[in-house]
Amino acid sequence: MSLEKILKAESVAIIGASKIETKRGYQTIRTLLDEKYGGEIYPVNPKEKSILGFKCYQNVSAIGGPVDVALVATPARTLPAVLEDCGQKGVKGAVVLAAGFGEMGPEGRKLENEMVAVARKHHIRLIGPNTSGMLNLHDNLNLVGLKDAPKGNIALLTQSGNMALTLITEAKVKSNKGFSYYVGVGNEADIQFHEYLEFFRHDPDTKAILMYVEGLRNGRKFIQQAQKTTLEKPVILLKSGRSSTGKKSAGSHTGSLAGISEVAQGAFRRAGIITIENSDELFPVAETLSSLPPIKNNNVAILADGGGHATIAADLLTDLGVNMPELSEKTQQKLKALLPDAASVPNPVDVAGGTDADPSLFADCAKIMLNDPNVGGLLIVGLFGGYGIRFAESLSLMEEDAAHRMGKLVKSRHKPIVLHSLYTSEKPHALDLLRYYNIPVYDSLDVSVKCISALAEYGVYLNSYHPKYTFDLNWDAKAKPEGIEIIKAAREDGRQALLEPEAKRLFGLHGAPVSQDLLAKSADEAVAIAAKAGSEVVLKIVSPNILHKTEASGVRIKLRTEQEVRQAYEEIIQSAIDYNPKADIRGVLVSPMAAEGVEVIIGTKYDDQFGPIIMYGLGGIMVEILKDVAFRVVPLSPSGARKMIEETKSFPILDGSRGKPPLDKKAIAKLLQLCSEIMVAYPEIAEMDLNPVIVHQEGLSIVDARVILKADEKCRMSEVRCKRNGS
Amino acid sequence: MSLEKILKAESVAIIGASKIETKRGYQTIRTLLDEKYGGEIYPVNPKEKSILGFKCYQNVSAIGGPVDVALVATPARTLPAVLEDCGQKGVKGAVVLAAGFGEMGPEGRKLENEMVAVARKHHIRLIGPNTSGMLNLHDNLNLVGLKDAPKGNIALLTQSGNMALTLITEAKVKSNKGFSYYVGVGNEADIQFHEYLEFFRHDPDTKAILMYVEGLRNGRKFIQQAQKTTLEKPVILLKSGRSSTGKKSAGSHTGSLAGISEVAQGAFRRAGIITIENSDELFPVAETLSSLPPIKNNNVAILADGGGHATIAADLLTDLGVNMPELSEKTQQKLKALLPDAASVPNPVDVAGGTDADPSLFADCAKIMLNDPNVGGLLIVGLFGGYGIRFAESLSLMEEDAAHRMGKLVKSRHKPIVLHSLYTSEKPHALDLLRYYNIPVYDSLDVSVKCISALAEYGVYLNSYHPKYTFDLNWDAKAKPEGIEIIKAAREDGRQALLEPEAKRLFGLHGAPVSQDLLAKSADEAVAIAAKAGSEVVLKIVSPNILHKTEASGVRIKLRTEQEVRQAYEEIIQSAIDYNPKADIRGVLVSPMAAEGVEVIIGTKYDDQFGPIIMYGLGGIMVEILKDVAFRVVPLSPSGARKMIEETKSFPILDGSRGKPPLDKKAIAKLLQLCSEIMVAYPEIAEMDLNPVIVHQEGLSIVDARVILKADEKCRMSEVRCKRNGS
Repeated sequence: MSLEKILKAESVAIIGASKIETKRGYQTIRTLLDEKYGGEIYPVNPKEKSILGFKCYQNVSAIGGPVDVALVATPARTLPAVLEDCGQKGVKGAVVLAAGFGEMGPEGRKLENEMVAVARKHHIRLIGPNTSGMLNLHDNLNLVGLKDAPKGNIALLTQSGNMALTLITEAKVKSNKGFSYYVGVGNEADIQFHEYLEFFRHDPDTKAILMYVEGLRNGRKFIQQAQKTTLEKPVILLKSGRSSTGKKSAGSHTGSLAGISEVAQGAFRRAGIITIENSDELFPVAETLSSLPPIKNNNVAILADGGGHATIAADLLTDLGVNMPELSEKTQQKLKALLPDAASVPNPVDVAGGTDADPSLFADCAKIMLNDPNVGGLLIVGLFGGYGIRFAESLSLMEEDAAHRMGKLVKSRHKPIVLHSLYTSEKPHALDLLRYYNIPVYDSLDVSVKCISALAEYGVYLNSYHPKYTFDLNWDAKAKPEGIEIIKAAREDGRQALLEPEAKRLFGLHGAPVSQDLLAKSADEAVAIAAKAGSEVVLKIVSPNILHKTEASGVRIKLRTEQEVRQAYEEIIQSAIDYNPKADIRGVLVSPMAAEGVEVIIGTKYDDQFGPIIMYGLGGIMVEILKDVAFRVVPLSPSGARKMIEETKSFPILDGSRGKPPLDKKAIAKLLQLCSEIMVAYPEIAEMDLNPVIVHQEGLSIVDARVILKADEKCRMSEVRCKRNGS
Repeated sequence: MSLEKILKAESVAIIGASKIETKRGYQTIRTLLDEKYGGEIYPVNPKEKSILGFKCYQNVSAIGGPVDVALVATPARTLPAVLEDCGQKGVKGAVVLAAGFGEMGPEGRKLENEMVAVARKHHIRLIGPNTSGMLNLHDNLNLVGLKDAPKGNIALLTQSGNMALTLITEAKVKSNKGFSYYVGVGNEADIQFHEYLEFFRHDPDTKAILMYVEGLRNGRKFIQQAQKTTLEKPVILLKSGRSSTGKKSAGSHTGSLAGISEVAQGAFRRAGIITIENSDELFPVAETLSSLPPIKNNNVAILADGGGHATIAADLLTDLGVNMPELSEKTQQKLKALLPDAASVPNPVDVAGGTDADPSLFADCAKIMLNDPNVGGLLIVGLFGGYGIRFAESLSLMEEDAAHRMGKLVKSRHKPIVLHSLYTSEKPHALDLLRYYNIPVYDSLDVSVKCISALAEYGVYLNSYHPKYTFDLNWDAKAKPEGIEIIKAAREDGRQALLEPEAKRLFGLHGAPVSQDLLAKSADEAVAIAAKAGSEVVLKIVSPNILHKTEASGVRIKLRTEQEVRQAYEEIIQSAIDYNPKADIRGVLVSPMAAEGVEVIIGTKYDDQFGPIIMYGLGGIMVEILKDVAFRVVPLSPSGARKMIEETKSFPILDGSRGKPPLDKKAIAKLLQLCSEIMVAYPEIAEMDLNPVIVHQEGLSIVDARVILKADEKCRMSEVRCKRNGS
């Protein structure tokens, strides 16, 4: 169900309405009245006849007209009964303020489940519990204990009432922007982040979505929805709780390396979300993105009236990955004609006192700079707004003239300006004018730089977006009948892992370059296969009971002669028996020895929040000791595969060292995508490990491959159609 | 000469005094008058009789009384003549405002040198040129174009007038703190950063020193002075210009890896300087450090009235390396007795609404928490200051009560509190009270965290300081007579590099574990030496004309038999002749083959700013491709050597991988210190390269060592007594 009926409710029941002024059940009615809410208000309290002039009802069922939403201000334990009452009445949604649910341990979790069950039965959607409430500023529907929030077009979604208060206060004190909605998502017992996101995506009053997130209930749905949303409006997010999360599951090899927030960061970026680490930047970036066009070419110019600010801004922009192109010869000439000899014009432009007598020159410079086709956006840093205050009052009028002209410039050129001013605290009129024209003004140099760089980041994202590469899991679409057979056979054999030859065959089916391995059941067979291979061979034990072959002394490499092969076969079999006398030994795999190269590792697994993810790293110490790995959510795009490889610190090793030629990075990228494809094609697969893969100048060799299947009961993700397993 | 006479001048000549109100020559006199400067004021302008009631002089020599300092407001080209005039008069110092010197290229550089020569001749010290001026707030000596700077005990030293304006404005608007001095250092043509630092170290009105630096003229003297200063008062520094510097000298191997700012960062940290990257944090950190005691144990507790702020603060503190210990059982019990059941008390402490009815509980909680011996400092985040505003006015009085009590608590416990409040913009009285008690208050969560963490960082530094390990270069002190002989012999031989056996002997003299290499002058000798070695040997060419032995095919390893040694000898000699027919071949070095282990590299060289520095990294791809190296300024302390090893990313490799035992990190640290010692003992050495050094489970092997001497004309650092070279 759409959230429209709840977030834009036309009638509200206040359950736990009160005559006591300090109670939420009073304050809410008072606020709805004060702020001229246009819908119906129904106080509910069996002990009162009327509150603030409204008739008070015994219960919700007793109300005459329809009720869209109930604000529930009664304690946690009352909720199942309250919702039963709401259900009888046909209430569409409830905002549950009470704490004392899932966040309080098993007891609370039980109560929360009970409450949700009642709500589901009656098709009531829940905001919260444990929420500060909900606020729709365009319809004056204020169900939160907070007045005077500024109205505007930013939707605010948070998991902390205090952070909401922080952001709303900041908007009020430091900007002329405001909010379309505020929702405290609370425990997300029913409605989750991604559902609010979808509502705001369609909401015409919302131009940007600002989020404070501590944890996500369903990361996959969230990024799917976010990816759709960011194509239409920017989403800005601060995720906290880094320090407490850490390594989560000590499960598989891949799992033990996966810092959850690393996966999340990558997924957020790929969904086009602008992530913020510094809470000071959260509102300003939302303000900027809600009101200015993104920068198309990642190129920013700086205009300054002093060296220090320009230098710091240039450092920070560089740190944030934004280009500062040198201005064109023509642009530089025009600026020189306008400014004193001492002025620096390549970029940053330092006016060197050129604006002291006439600060309206800022607008002239801005025009020249934004007309340079290579400049995507402009950052002005320094004293603008303070010329009239510092020098002579008459200069204020020139600053105001400049503000008008710069405002119109931004509109006509579709290129943004962000301004840093030392004088925001003095509130000069010129700065108010800039804000009126949607040019944001900050007293912090760092925040100004972050804001203009966010416009560049968003622009780069929109340019690089390709509709083919979404987060949707097109299960089964690319499965091969023979692949399904391999998995089925393993299941029927009672196994939860594919044998190495099975795993390699599966990869080969999908076009991976696997070696022509053959299974030998006797030393003679091994010798015969080795002879045909025509090169050095490797022998490896094949047994469903031996997953870690090296541990069981089950591998022999670089075998050249018949004698070596025969001896190796006998030793491997004997070692396997010694290792596990009950092992079901299927034979010994004979593979050609892989050519020399650099080892890499690829792994896939299921993440609790995001579902299937993929890991890549350079083998050996790089992964094992230096933890130099990259993660991505599956399915992987071609550019995602390339970037995974490039973002590992050890990446330069693939470019060749000590005079060696570069290795086949394209082959790695192709294999990463192929692993992503297999993960999606066979929902029965729980995790895969390609370790090692040896990368050559041309092509690569998959030396070992492990594929673990899900335990039946683990096929639980709603998208997973595990029909082939009958579950 | 001390700067006292200049920075605390009792008489000022204004050269270029003027009657025009917009001129600096008028404004300065006006300001000195307005601000009641107690010293003598002498306008100098041949065209005027009097200005603002003061007699105007033809020139400085014409002034009757003594003149301590001259503010020079005339153009650059007049400076030599002006200073000549000042010199005649016996003026002690001059503040030179004019631009157009060194910063404008060779022409300006020439004029600057000329000006400095005149000043030196007359013992006049110069501030600037190209400076916004100087301001002594305690003596009302205002020689800068800026009024209303708040007075206090922070000395401000910057290389940017705009940054000074930024910081002074911030102090005025957001704090109750101010400045003792402001000096714009300008081009540092004469007086340099370290000299101001020394003055402020001794100045009783200064409790903290705040610096904005773009570049240092003499990094070594700066860190020497800073190390002395930070023992007495904190020094806070923001260094910009990161992006533009980059790789500087493409000289030696070590040189091409040295990012100048990396060396600087390490040196600053070791000197006890608190470095800041975010310009928003610069003034707040100085404010905090100037008024609160450092935290002794790196342990901080958080007190919050909401989950969101606490979570973000905990994340940031962790990122900054500050501990958040769990509070003691006793502390937790006391807090529980005070707060509601829902409160969280381990750390962070979340009052969970417990302060809503009585915010004076903040003081009770603060007292309990600061009484915990494990808590070194307290960060309070959230709504304090806003209870009276949000809920009921009567709560303001309780907040004021809490402010008084917390203020006294900080004084009596000698433990700091830093407070974040959402309500700073509303200016509640409680927050002013906190500031009165030196508890800093910020509206930014990030800034608050940075401030408390700076107190912890400073405390950790002071605890770890050891008077033995300074930046002083005790040249020659540890030189060995035989070492001096080796260098002398090389010089006499016309060489600028030691031969490998010489280099190794030098290292051996200082106790480094060098192998017993011997020089063979014939194949027979080589065979005889190898036979005695009793192990595999390595043969290496020795020739002053062949620095890169491998390039000349001059190395053979793992030689076992007499036949192998003989053949290797002949081949090496032949290869050397082929490589360079004119090479002076001294023979072939026979060394025992080093045992297996991990390769590391140690190098030393001279940095333009800091003099001798040392580099360390793991050999092979780690250094060559991943640039995973650490730098330190020489001399190196034992803890510095340890930290160098630990800060390389590849450090865990030394702890053993794939079941291998850990390697001898102590031996590396010892060798690093020894290299530092040699670098200081022999100022003739320009650079050294130990590449590779093989580290074993116990001990290490120096496989190759290169020592390059300075060209005579390069012995230029003032501290270097190159007397033995006769230069």
